[in-house]
Amino acid sequence: MIGVVAQLKVKEGGQDGFEEAAKKLVAAVNANEPGCKLYQLFKVQESATDYVFMEQYENQAAVDAHRASDHFKTLGAAMGPFLDGRPVIIRTDIVE
Amino acid sequence: MIGVVAQLKVKEGGQDGFEEAAKKLVAAVNANEPGCKLYQLFKVQESATDYVFMEQYENQAAVDAHRASDHFKTLGAAMGPFLDGRPVIIRTDIVE
Repeated sequence: MIGVVAQLKVKEGGQDGFEEAAKKLVAAVNANEPGCKLYQLFKVQESATDYVFMEQYENQAAVDAHRASDHFKTLGAAMGPFLDGRPVIIRTDIVE
Repeated sequence: MIGVVAQLKVKEGGQDGFEEAAKKLVAAVNANEPGCKLYQLFKVQESATDYVFMEQYENQAAVDAHRASDHFKTLGAAMGPFLDGRPVIIRTDIVE
């Protein structure tokens, strides 16, 4: 299993727009990507503007399929204007 | 749901000792904490010494129970000598 933690900072005032697109992305991933085993959006406690996606994929092919999907491209682009800088992505492999 | 991402850096050469204790902790949490819905250990790709715990709890009481548990205290202490600095903990609430 591959685990991904994506940390995103949103511009002040951009939370609603970001969450609207991000929620659509969560729904689309979970509906359409059998190789994606976890895809959830969290908001950092004690921060007004920081979010985390927790993601798990059964293998690298599933990661590649996610990144190549129309919903990722379309909704990723929709989130872009609300982001403050580039996401920080931590890519990992499961130990236990 | 509360999500926690714990980032830990291990001293060079400490990987085996750290993983031995960390795997025991994963097993103990999953066997004994009904309020903990996800508790997994991942190793960061392209790093020899960085690890991530992905954790999810049904509520703050479950987080508190985790931190107060004997297994967390004992195995957390067992991991301590292998760590290079303090863990970085990201505490979050689920959005979607």
